[in-house]
Amino acid sequence: MQVKRIYNFNPGPAVLPESVLQEIQSEFMSFKGTGMSITEISHRSKAFEDVLNDAIVRIKRLLKLDDRFHVLFLQGGASLQFSMIPMNLLADGQTADYINTGTWATKAIKEAKILGKKVHVAASSEDRNFAYIPKQFQFSQDAAYVHITSNNTIKGTQWSSFPNTGNIPMISDMSSDIMSRPFNASSFGCIYAGAQKNMGPAGVCIVILREDMLKRVPTNLPSMLKYTTHTENNSLYNTPPCFSIYTVYLVMKWLEETIGGLEKMEELNQKKAGLLYDFMEKGDFYRSTADKDSRSLMNVTFRLPNEELEKKFVAEAKKNDLDGLKGHRSVGGCRASIYNAMPLAGVETLVSFMESFQKQNR
Amino acid sequence: MQVKRIYNFNPGPAVLPESVLQEIQSEFMSFKGTGMSITEISHRSKAFEDVLNDAIVRIKRLLKLDDRFHVLFLQGGASLQFSMIPMNLLADGQTADYINTGTWATKAIKEAKILGKKVHVAASSEDRNFAYIPKQFQFSQDAAYVHITSNNTIKGTQWSSFPNTGNIPMISDMSSDIMSRPFNASSFGCIYAGAQKNMGPAGVCIVILREDMLKRVPTNLPSMLKYTTHTENNSLYNTPPCFSIYTVYLVMKWLEETIGGLEKMEELNQKKAGLLYDFMEKGDFYRSTADKDSRSLMNVTFRLPNEELEKKFVAEAKKNDLDGLKGHRSVGGCRASIYNAMPLAGVETLVSFMESFQKQNR
Repeated sequence: MQVKRIYNFNPGPAVLPESVLQEIQSEFMSFKGTGMSITEISHRSKAFEDVLNDAIVRIKRLLKLDDRFHVLFLQGGASLQFSMIPMNLLADGQTADYINTGTWATKAIKEAKILGKKVHVAASSEDRNFAYIPKQFQFSQDAAYVHITSNNTIKGTQWSSFPNTGNIPMISDMSSDIMSRPFNASSFGCIYAGAQKNMGPAGVCIVILREDMLKRVPTNLPSMLKYTTHTENNSLYNTPPCFSIYTVYLVMKWLEETIGGLEKMEELNQKKAGLLYDFMEKGDFYRSTADKDSRSLMNVTFRLPNEELEKKFVAEAKKNDLDGLKGHRSVGGCRASIYNAMPLAGVETLVSFMESFQKQNR
Repeated sequence: MQVKRIYNFNPGPAVLPESVLQEIQSEFMSFKGTGMSITEISHRSKAFEDVLNDAIVRIKRLLKLDDRFHVLFLQGGASLQFSMIPMNLLADGQTADYINTGTWATKAIKEAKILGKKVHVAASSEDRNFAYIPKQFQFSQDAAYVHITSNNTIKGTQWSSFPNTGNIPMISDMSSDIMSRPFNASSFGCIYAGAQKNMGPAGVCIVILREDMLKRVPTNLPSMLKYTTHTENNSLYNTPPCFSIYTVYLVMKWLEETIGGLEKMEELNQKKAGLLYDFMEKGDFYRSTADKDSRSLMNVTFRLPNEELEKKFVAEAKKNDLDGLKGHRSVGGCRASIYNAMPLAGVETLVSFMESFQKQNR
């Protein structure tokens, strides 16, 4: 029986590739002939370790990470990384530079400060409600790292290229755009991403650490909060979130084998975002909220002429099987999250809905 | 098509009720008619909040928790709770009492000490390799809490009744026996359990906190490590592990509606464990490692005449579709984990296999 599926524009948890969901469903009662569900098999079994290791190999291949990089699967989401990063990588007395581009960057700064760490805000776009990515930075002389948020899910902005920080390692929260395009990872000391946007379901955070960063990890941290605990145990110090890791593995397989890698993925993402932005630019009914040079290819934020129309737009879209178009509660407006797994047809359907909604509500 | 399933005696991740797995599979492509998978729906949607809240209601009803108790779904497993408990509930300078009954209790003590907290070991069964539950305790005058491990997965022991700690709140790691029997929760300030044994898949830890414990939480903790962050946000401060919570909800529903509650569950668990222990007592080929009065109903640990036979036993059992019977790598031997979801037929099959293995290998 064909199950009815809709177009899911939610910001995360978000749409997953339909073929991945079908594969999970088909082998759910017995994973690879083990007679056990993937939710039941031991994390110390060969069957599970194969999944984990293959996921790592694929992530490294997709991001062109060399042997210096460790790939970890941790719990607690990017929100716990906001604390683990300064705890592990920023010694007391040292300063870290943070670039503030919105809600999540602000939270990352807040958590570093809770730990009593020295934070320098090297740039901020708060003056215009985070509608752009800053172009001028005032880095500290001896910053331990420069922290950025590569894509701002709520504000709808994205770094189109990364700043040159010289010898200072960059750290980036890439929760909402990892795997959406190729980039040069070698200048990053740490990249982290909650899986629930571009990599899989909620419940696992991918943390990529460059070997030299591990020298900074203090000895006296709680075991679970210490990066070396996890690098030394290949993410198997304690029971990992097996099902989430398994789904990430399948999504990475889809990225490599069905999409064909990150270059192809970027092409498709540009095409999808282009459709939406180009359509909005043709009139003045829909207004993109981000500056043109800072627009996100993942989260397209926009306003309608008034809030009443925005409410009506979201409700009618939902009736037309286009879900999740409401903007974040902190900023209002509308937002279409069009992550990797959103098919082109979904964006085309949205654009034609927007067109007819506009005609009927001018 | 009927998929072949085996009997899974793994210690966790572990067997789940087959009807629960079937329900997950059947609605995997479209959760409750939303047109989205449970892995794709927003954690802020009504559909998901209904799941979360129903899981809480069922957990409270099953454990007979009154209004003072909060039920949280956190990430990081019981291993992160080893740190969060002293961080949140044990002020510097105060002492906490820990009863050491094995590997996990030892780890809990270690993590409290890493934080520089004062720990008093009120009892230990280390003298006989943790083969029993202590009966004599030396509690501190003003202990902030008494920490116990209700069931010891690796050593195969379980508290048959809990100590009387008077006004001192008890805290228990119940990862491997929560929901296996009724007990009086009101003397516990905190109960925590990684879900992957008796409640669901890996990736979520259930933390039950009594209201009065929250007064102890310091203000300056990292947000994700602070219990009040999660009690104030109903476990939705950040994206929770949605799929794991959903599965826990289904398992709780199964416990209430199919099994009929914890009294019925305990009856069945006693019957299952009884079959195994009684069979082993009839001869001297299989030797239960735990003292009789301390035996676990969840993890039945045993030895065979020699290690070679143990290896052969585990391998032949696996060939007979009885998986996961190897003891923990730190202790060796054999172990049958027979959590709630292990059907009686599974234990009967195991006993008859043990019988024939014994005949062939005397």
